[in-house]
Amino acid sequence: MTGIHDSLIVIDGLVISKWSREVFADMRKGGLTAANCTCSIWEGFTETMRDIARWKRRFTDNADLITPVHTTADIRRAKAEGKTGIILGFQNTSAFEDQVGYIGLFKDLGVGVVQITYNTQNLAGAGCYERRDTGLSGFGYEVVAEMNRVGILCDLSHVGGLTSRDVILASKRPVAYTHILPATLKAHPRNKSDEEIRFIVEHGGFVGVTMFPPFLARGNNSTVEDYVTAIDHVIRIAGEENVGIGTDFTQDQDDAFFEYICHDKGDGWRVTGPFGDVINPAGMRRIGDFPNLTAAMERAGWPETKIRKIMGENWLRVLADVWGE
Amino acid sequence: MTGIHDSLIVIDGLVISKWSREVFADMRKGGLTAANCTCSIWEGFTETMRDIARWKRRFTDNADLITPVHTTADIRRAKAEGKTGIILGFQNTSAFEDQVGYIGLFKDLGVGVVQITYNTQNLAGAGCYERRDTGLSGFGYEVVAEMNRVGILCDLSHVGGLTSRDVILASKRPVAYTHILPATLKAHPRNKSDEEIRFIVEHGGFVGVTMFPPFLARGNNSTVEDYVTAIDHVIRIAGEENVGIGTDFTQDQDDAFFEYICHDKGDGWRVTGPFGDVINPAGMRRIGDFPNLTAAMERAGWPETKIRKIMGENWLRVLADVWGE
Repeated sequence: MTGIHDSLIVIDGLVISKWSREVFADMRKGGLTAANCTCSIWEGFTETMRDIARWKRRFTDNADLITPVHTTADIRRAKAEGKTGIILGFQNTSAFEDQVGYIGLFKDLGVGVVQITYNTQNLAGAGCYERRDTGLSGFGYEVVAEMNRVGILCDLSHVGGLTSRDVILASKRPVAYTHILPATLKAHPRNKSDEEIRFIVEHGGFVGVTMFPPFLARGNNSTVEDYVTAIDHVIRIAGEENVGIGTDFTQDQDDAFFEYICHDKGDGWRVTGPFGDVINPAGMRRIGDFPNLTAAMERAGWPETKIRKIMGENWLRVLADVWGE
Repeated sequence: MTGIHDSLIVIDGLVISKWSREVFADMRKGGLTAANCTCSIWEGFTETMRDIARWKRRFTDNADLITPVHTTADIRRAKAEGKTGIILGFQNTSAFEDQVGYIGLFKDLGVGVVQITYNTQNLAGAGCYERRDTGLSGFGYEVVAEMNRVGILCDLSHVGGLTSRDVILASKRPVAYTHILPATLKAHPRNKSDEEIRFIVEHGGFVGVTMFPPFLARGNNSTVEDYVTAIDHVIRIAGEENVGIGTDFTQDQDDAFFEYICHDKGDGWRVTGPFGDVINPAGMRRIGDFPNLTAAMERAGWPETKIRKIMGENWLRVLADVWGE
């Protein structure tokens, strides 16, 4: 295995796996320093709080493998202690319900990244699968301002184009697509055009690149080399400083999970996402394969400084900017 | 005014006033270093979370007067900065609902003191006005263990006698009556017998003494001297190291508030507390009068070391023990 990987700060901008001790052990095997771990998709306030309570129990029961992240100092501490830092994240603002005041509570509990909408319309704005996107709502502007104030990263990956643009212009701190692929390589509602990638970066934002097969040109036949190629495409537009990893690992999730995330509100009639088997790129089938990504970057001739930045150091800088350290 | 008061660490073990900038300014006038401020009585999880969100806004809007307390270092910092430290507290475990996992969430949000029951029976045990007290429930034992683990003080002021005894015996950390008066001076369901006071202290516990007029022998005709006399009675039983202040200031609260707290669940049929006008002891009418309490202790011939301990240093030690610092 590559020698450089073990020395890297490795940050994954999105993981939504079925949480278990096995997954946490695989994070360690993969040398993951920190990950944005989804703990709310369609859930409201109370269900999300219950899930955070489950996370607190996981932190206690798996303290040898994982550690909660509230600051980038916690990420550096995780690296030093040989643990994986867990950044709690939402893929929706549904947990805020209609209470801007809840945002600060979630921040206190370790929520560091929140996506403004998930696929469809919510109180804040429209998702990338919504019929019409009329942009950020009045409440959405309040949400963005409060997320700025308390220090939570605005994620726009599943957000509609117009709503994304509004958030990018409204936010006083960097915002991010934490897990997207370029539409130039494959046309898909979840992929972003080169113009969109350029726009977010020109306004101080950041782009995490996913490897979710339905959004890759070769789908389930993709390899880790295809992933590196896609990352390089984004780097050419966004610049080497503004790109990171956001795998979207759905490790150990079952069919019911995909049914849940791909229907509006979890059990609505509208299908709002891709279906079918998800086979991760060859070489990156599981979280423990992360060293293969570094190796593929080396084979592609990336210099070490570029690898270090893309694998985690860029994320570290952006999170510090947003969290206010 | 007395010279010694300004140099004291002054901790009030229970305040349940109508929170406003005026009250916070009065806390500063009174030289209050920190106070256990009630933010849940009958409320469930969500309503309590909303109230904590309101507190977060108060912290922002009144940052020149108050500061949140998570540790006793925060209390010392409050003293140094000339602010009043706010310890969030519950007078009931209703906010935990049936989820032990919620307890750690509230701890993270700054809740440092929680009463096991308020007046009547809940999922954990029985209150001091309940028809029968069968002691701590199975769930109640889990609650106490989790409060021990995360570091929240168990308050027993409004708790029934048998349930109190069970908590005192079950808890691995000090527990407290944060605001009681001796039944020897006035028989009342809310007052504690000398035996009860002795029992909690013999098991490492602590006693905060209230001045709530309905529980004082002379009721609304009481003076700050009567309060000092009552404190001295408790000290004779509990010892100078194990007693503190817990005024139960209900400053600016209206009739609707007293109706709410004195009916089971806030709007139940059962009346579960004393009614009528509440006129605080002469000399201690308002929170800003706190220097008069120190002066009354001096007039009673208390040595300075005793005043320092009772006014706050004892509380500081117990909170450090429970919060685990």
